[in-house]
Amino acid sequence: MAREIERKFLVTGDAWRDQVIQQTRFVQGYLNSIEETSCKSSVRIRIEGTQANINIKSLEIGLSRDEYEYPIALADAENMLKKLTVGPIIEKIRYLVPAAIGVWEIDEFFGDNDGLIIAELELPDERTPVTVPDWIGREVTDDLKYYNVSLSKNPYSQWKQHETN
Amino acid sequence: MAREIERKFLVTGDAWRDQVIQQTRFVQGYLNSIEETSCKSSVRIRIEGTQANINIKSLEIGLSRDEYEYPIALADAENMLKKLTVGPIIEKIRYLVPAAIGVWEIDEFFGDNDGLIIAELELPDERTPVTVPDWIGREVTDDLKYYNVSLSKNPYSQWKQHETN
Repeated sequence: MAREIERKFLVTGDAWRDQVIQQTRFVQGYLNSIEETSCKSSVRIRIEGTQANINIKSLEIGLSRDEYEYPIALADAENMLKKLTVGPIIEKIRYLVPAAIGVWEIDEFFGDNDGLIIAELELPDERTPVTVPDWIGREVTDDLKYYNVSLSKNPYSQWKQHETN
Repeated sequence: MAREIERKFLVTGDAWRDQVIQQTRFVQGYLNSIEETSCKSSVRIRIEGTQANINIKSLEIGLSRDEYEYPIALADAENMLKKLTVGPIIEKIRYLVPAAIGVWEIDEFFGDNDGLIIAELELPDERTPVTVPDWIGREVTDDLKYYNVSLSKNPYSQWKQHETN
């Protein structure tokens, strides 16, 4: 089984912006509140660049969960995200920036997570040394609150104090 | 504006069964409870013959409601209807039977509405006389509880006493 080694850092400067080789907008939100006990599934609308889809996932506990995904029109997704979603929306631009080894994936968040910028680097091995540019701040690899699943429940705008370095 | 004139009757006999010229199975159910105040939309899965779709409709009050519909795989729809729906499922076979004028649409319900059979006839005019075959029972055109929207909330199996003629 392949294991993904990923390190996650806060981004503190802007020097990376002129090194961007690709950028893609992501937006996602839910049509139902996944805390509702009455629902047996989550219904998610997601935009990734020019593609959009609707995703239905069963909420059962256990190893396997049913998942269904269908492409939908981009304009439909924009409308549904604007008018029909319940709870926080995750909206971000993912920038790719070359690293010494591999590529920095830099997520700049908007909406409920406005102001948060996180950089991720995928590594072949846990012991691979990382050359850290000066726009990289504190490492947050082990801090669950910076993960997408947390940010969609407890968004950055609701944190009491924000990290600045 | 075109107005649809439709009369609705209970079906009491079986003599229509050998006059069926077409039959189509319908199944539909919801992934969320439309009574949930937290949801801004209904999410419906429907099978009609060999076709299936997912339909999202905004729950806002007013003249216009947003509606989105996408085709999905029949097997996906069957699975979702079996495992992920919330509340009663509408399951019926619609039979078409020639009438003196037009065509009888006969809906035989299963599942939560098992035992209920309703015949509908579309007419060009409210004053068009209807020739009623002997398998037709009481007229229920003005009885809201026989409409799909009612049957999905308060299904036939939960009625205290059933009509027999």
